[in-house]
Amino acid sequence: MSIDGYIATKNDELDFLSLVEEEGEDYGYAAFTKTVDTVIMGRKTYEKVLSFGIAFPHAGKECYVITKSLREDDGSVHFYRGNLPWLISDLKSKQGKNIFIDGGAETVHALLNDKLIDEMIISIIPVLLGNGIKLFKDERPEQKLKLVSSKAFNRGLVQLHYICQ
Amino acid sequence: MSIDGYIATKNDELDFLSLVEEEGEDYGYAAFTKTVDTVIMGRKTYEKVLSFGIAFPHAGKECYVITKSLREDDGSVHFYRGNLPWLISDLKSKQGKNIFIDGGAETVHALLNDKLIDEMIISIIPVLLGNGIKLFKDERPEQKLKLVSSKAFNRGLVQLHYICQ
Repeated sequence: MSIDGYIATKNDELDFLSLVEEEGEDYGYAAFTKTVDTVIMGRKTYEKVLSFGIAFPHAGKECYVITKSLREDDGSVHFYRGNLPWLISDLKSKQGKNIFIDGGAETVHALLNDKLIDEMIISIIPVLLGNGIKLFKDERPEQKLKLVSSKAFNRGLVQLHYICQ
Repeated sequence: MSIDGYIATKNDELDFLSLVEEEGEDYGYAAFTKTVDTVIMGRKTYEKVLSFGIAFPHAGKECYVITKSLREDDGSVHFYRGNLPWLISDLKSKQGKNIFIDGGAETVHALLNDKLIDEMIISIIPVLLGNGIKLFKDERPEQKLKLVSSKAFNRGLVQLHYICQ
C-alpha cells in the first residue's frame, strides 16, 4: 500500500507500483509463494489479474475466488459464494501450506472483521497517493499485532511482517 | 499511527499508544524536538494536549495554534486564523530551526493539500484499531516520497522517515 493506505487508484490502477520496480528484486514474492498452496481472492481482484493478459500467477495452487454469482470451477480455480469463515475453517482443517489472501480490499475487510487473518505482510510504497481504494476500511474490531520483521529496500519500499494476535 | 492509519479513536482517545510504552524509550522524540524552534498544531490537538494536565510540552518554542476564532496570544502560544501557506512561507523566510507540525489530522491535511510538508516521520504502532481518526484523509494531490530511514523498535513500533518530493 501507499503510506496513506491505498492499494489502487479509484479506477483500480496500480501505476504507483512502478515506483519500486527494480530488476532482479521481487520483494520476497517468489520465496513467499513457495510457502503457499491455496490462494483466496475477491472476484474483482481475480478479473484484474486476468486483465493483465499474463499467465495466471497462481497456476498450480488451489484458488478460491469469492463471488456473489454461481460459476463452475475452472481447473483449480473455484468460485466460492458461501460463508467465508466456513471456507477458512474447512481449508485450515486440512493438511497443507499457507493460505494466501491476494486481496482485494473487500475480501481482506471481511476476513479481518471475523479475525480470520493470522499473519500480514504489508509493503509500504514511498508515495502519498491522495485518493483511491483503501487496504483497510473503517468499522472493524481492534486487533493487536506482533511485529515479526521490518525490512527496507533500495527503492524505499518498507516491508512489515506482523502476526495477528 | 496504527497500521490501519488511525491516530486516535473516534473519541480522540490515545490509549493504543500504551502498547509501545517502554521505560527509557522515547522513540527519538527528545532528540527531534531539539532540532525544532517552532510548532504548529490544530486547535483540537492543542486543547487535547492541555487536557493532559501536564506542563505544556512545547514551552520555550514559538507555537502557532490554527484556529477559526480570534484569541489573544498566550506567551509564546500564538492563535492563528489566517492563511496557512502564508504562515509557513513567513516562518520559512526567517532564520531558524525546523518547524514541527504536531497534528492533528485537519492541519496535516491542509498542509499536504498545499504540499507544504518537507519531511514526515511516521511511527507505525503494531495494532489494527479498526476505527477512528485517520492521519491521511482522502482528496489530496499525489506526492512522491524518498525514504530516509526505517527503524524497528523492541515493542514493535516501526518509525519511517521520508522526505517529500
